[in-house]
Amino acid sequence: MREKQFMIDCGEGTQIRMRQMNVKTNRLGHIFISHLHGDHVFGLIGLISSFGMLNRTADLHIHAAPELEKIMEPQLYFFCEGLPFKVIFHALNPKVHELVYEDRTVQVYSIPLKHRVPSCGFLFEEKPRDRHIIREMIDFYKIPIWRIPKIKQGDNFETEEGEVVPNEKLTTAPEKPKRFAYCSDTAYYEKIIPLIEGVDCLYHEATFMDDELVRAKNTQHSTAGQAATIALKANVGKLIIGHYSARYTNKSGLLNEAKAVFENTVLGEDMTIYDI
Amino acid sequence: MREKQFMIDCGEGTQIRMRQMNVKTNRLGHIFISHLHGDHVFGLIGLISSFGMLNRTADLHIHAAPELEKIMEPQLYFFCEGLPFKVIFHALNPKVHELVYEDRTVQVYSIPLKHRVPSCGFLFEEKPRDRHIIREMIDFYKIPIWRIPKIKQGDNFETEEGEVVPNEKLTTAPEKPKRFAYCSDTAYYEKIIPLIEGVDCLYHEATFMDDELVRAKNTQHSTAGQAATIALKANVGKLIIGHYSARYTNKSGLLNEAKAVFENTVLGEDMTIYDI
Repeated sequence: MREKQFMIDCGEGTQIRMRQMNVKTNRLGHIFISHLHGDHVFGLIGLISSFGMLNRTADLHIHAAPELEKIMEPQLYFFCEGLPFKVIFHALNPKVHELVYEDRTVQVYSIPLKHRVPSCGFLFEEKPRDRHIIREMIDFYKIPIWRIPKIKQGDNFETEEGEVVPNEKLTTAPEKPKRFAYCSDTAYYEKIIPLIEGVDCLYHEATFMDDELVRAKNTQHSTAGQAATIALKANVGKLIIGHYSARYTNKSGLLNEAKAVFENTVLGEDMTIYDI
Repeated sequence: MREKQFMIDCGEGTQIRMRQMNVKTNRLGHIFISHLHGDHVFGLIGLISSFGMLNRTADLHIHAAPELEKIMEPQLYFFCEGLPFKVIFHALNPKVHELVYEDRTVQVYSIPLKHRVPSCGFLFEEKPRDRHIIREMIDFYKIPIWRIPKIKQGDNFETEEGEVVPNEKLTTAPEKPKRFAYCSDTAYYEKIIPLIEGVDCLYHEATFMDDELVRAKNTQHSTAGQAATIALKANVGKLIIGHYSARYTNKSGLLNEAKAVFENTVLGEDMTIYDI
């Protein structure tokens, strides 16, 4: 997002998959951990250890429930002695919706979820971009360079003759800021709907199909139909489902169940890149 | 070995590979850890956690340097609460050659190695099997059933008429007990030769080729040529090399270098089964 690289969760084998996909990690500065179950964190120590061997020097920030730092401390101490970069833990409270990260162009919010342990999703939002100035207008109205930043932000321009040129004549609208929400692991939980309303893309877990509704409820996971219902009610652009139970070797049933409720659904698959 | 399943080292992704290969783990009771570098232990917590979800009930024994238990304790406590089986750590001293495991049919010895941290290999030895009794001889000499166990162990048989039938007439020799040695990670270290003398199969690391001899020495790893020299001097049956540096995308150079010294060398590869 905006030329940056973020990671959400880090299960066992993450670094192996990244190597297989030839993913460069020099722009990865922040990792967001949704909850402290092994399949979402066991890959962290290997990733950090390998970054050390690759002589990474940039700080690595990990946003997670506060217990994670305590659990990882003995491992980092023992296996990552002399690491050439800092690992900085940022404690987040999965139970509240709040800003957990912000830079010049991107904001990340937590989305409280409903799972067996405190768990939150993440909402990634691009900040509004500047308007695009029309080069011909700069020449035509002889706009001095120092005026351009303000015009990109919406100002009108007054010529030396006192003519006010409205901003719409000088600029075109920027790309709409993209919004992506990640919600896993969670039971069906309607409280997230207002928080993710209208996102361009929603990743929502779909561990089971509707015929396992009771099991989904007991394990605090969602069905494909429930994920699609959330997508529909939140009026999202696209739904990616994932986190399937191992019982579904063929995933077409999951996809069809979701598509019946929310047509623009795709199956989340390993080692696949999705545009938002 | 002898219908048992042992694991040596457990790097990140071990459980994933095992699932891909459809390896059943119900006979896996003992894991032996050569040394406490991440690439040899980071897969343990995920393996244990998954065993818990699969409702394993049999104890799992881990033989490793004593620090491992302390490092894993917070993770086991946090991620594996209510595990339906016991994880039992057995502290081993990588600096001495000693018996670290024994059952009715198999013995495992440690093999001190030379690496940047205390490190040991493992020698797996089948105990001698009973001789095979020749069924026709039981009938011919009317040997009572209660005499058979002793005859299988080498006793002669005396008939009611006082005739002594020598054991060689009653039995055939058992299969020779198999011996397998695993040596990784280690610099070239001749002190292991008497400990692994004549094993049927030796796994020896070969991180580099001979043109990186200095780097091998500095990082306390071996070259393919050195691994083969150990195999030759220890008069082993077969050599499997492995633990290659990522720089060798094509491994034929490593294999050729080893074969020039010790012909019966094979490349150790992921997800491959080798007979001993």
